[in-house]
Amino acid sequence: MKIMRVEKTLVSTNRIEAFGHRPLLVVQEKVGGARSVAVDAVGCVPGDWVICVGSSAAREAAGAKDFPSDLTIVGIIDHWNPES
Amino acid sequence: MKIMRVEKTLVSTNRIEAFGHRPLLVVQEKVGGARSVAVDAVGCVPGDWVICVGSSAAREAAGAKDFPSDLTIVGIIDHWNPES
Amino acid sequence: MKIMRVEKTLVSTNRIEAFGHRPLLVVQEKVGGARSVAVDAVGCVPGDWVICVGSSAAREAAGAKDFPSDLTIVGIIDHWNPES
Amino acid sequence: MKIMRVEKTLVSTNRIEAFGHRPLLVVQEKVGGARSVAVDAVGCVPGDWVICVGSSAAREAAGAKDFPSDLTIVGIIDHWNPES
Amino acid sequence: MKIMRVEKTLVSTNRIEAFGHRPLLVVQEKVGGARSVAVDAVGCVPGDWVICVGSSAAREAAGAKDFPSDLTIVGIIDHWNPES
Repeated sequence: MKIMRVEKTLVSTNRIEAFGHRPLLVVQEKVGGARSVAVDAVGCVPGDWVICVGSSAAREAAGAKDFPSDLTIVGIIDHWNPES
Repeated sequence: MKIMRVEKTLVSTNRIEAFGHRPLLVVQEKVGGARSVAVDAVGCVPGDWVICVGSSAAREAAGAKDFPSDLTIVGIIDHWNPES
Repeated sequence: MKIMRVEKTLVSTNRIEAFGHRPLLVVQEKVGGARSVAVDAVGCVPGDWVICVGSSAAREAAGAKDFPSDLTIVGIIDHWNPES
Repeated sequence: MKIMRVEKTLVSTNRIEAFGHRPLLVVQEKVGGARSVAVDAVGCVPGDWVICVGSSAAREAAGAKDFPSDLTIVGIIDHWNPES
Repeated sequence: MKIMRVEKTLVSTNRIEAFGHRPLLVVQEKVGGARSVAVDAVGCVPGDWVICVGSSAAREAAGAKDFPSDLTIVGIIDHWNPES
């Protein structure tokens, strides 16, 4: 799993139905770093440092075996110092 | 999922039957960046910034569990500023 | 999927039976670039620019769910200019 | 599989139920290198050099097919000299 | 699949039972390059240039659908010149 930071919500009106109403969030490996999009399974807010799971595990983690996610937020880290 | 930009359609007359008539699009992580090929599941046009899902989720997202895709476009982003 | 160029056939006398007689080809993302090995599902020749599918989709694309491929050539690109 | 070093335990109070009480550890490919998070399936301690499995194999290695892990520690290396 | 070179056997006394007695080998993409660990399915020796399969195909290639490998050696290359 990767440690990433939530930047903001991503708005995509035209998307496949399989996503349902699950929120899609923009995440970064570090502040100012490359961006990815993750499905939120825990309820987090911008600024949170989170644990993201990828690969086929991202589907199950998003709630169902056929959920089309390859990156799902599965936990919020209590305390994280990216510099340490 | 990755945020990518649609560049153009890719023509491949000789391809496996399993792709059917699904369009294959050339996508880039940024203008002038490395190219990948994605299956379009939402109906997008060149210039659109889109959400691409990879891994095993790309198969289901393309419409069927046995669709041989490892990168599928699952949503069009309403507004995206790659510089921000 | 990735856009790659076929360099040559790879000879491996001692290999697992599951590969059967399927040809294994050396492919490169660009001329002189890093090499990978792909299973050919369309019938291509050295010099062709091809579409390669990875992840779990490479298995099904190679002909069967239990075919042990993680990179399969699924189409030949009609015209490709790597410089454009 | 990758060779990684265990740095410390990661505390995440708010996480999906599917993780149960399995410990999550911060691992690095080298001292001072980029960090990932792995599920521990063997019982290791900070400083151990371990074998981490990724991809879909990480789920089964963590104990069950539906365990949402994409990186699982599957063995402790008896002796490892990262410089050699 | 990747072309890699076998460096040596990796000793890991404390490991998950699912590995059975299958040998684990340290492999490198080039001499002096980064190391990975692969399960040997063909019987190779240090110095061999081999074909390694990753992703979910590595499980089946290792002998069973539930074998927890993400990198399995599936063939020995007859002649390989890494410089060519």
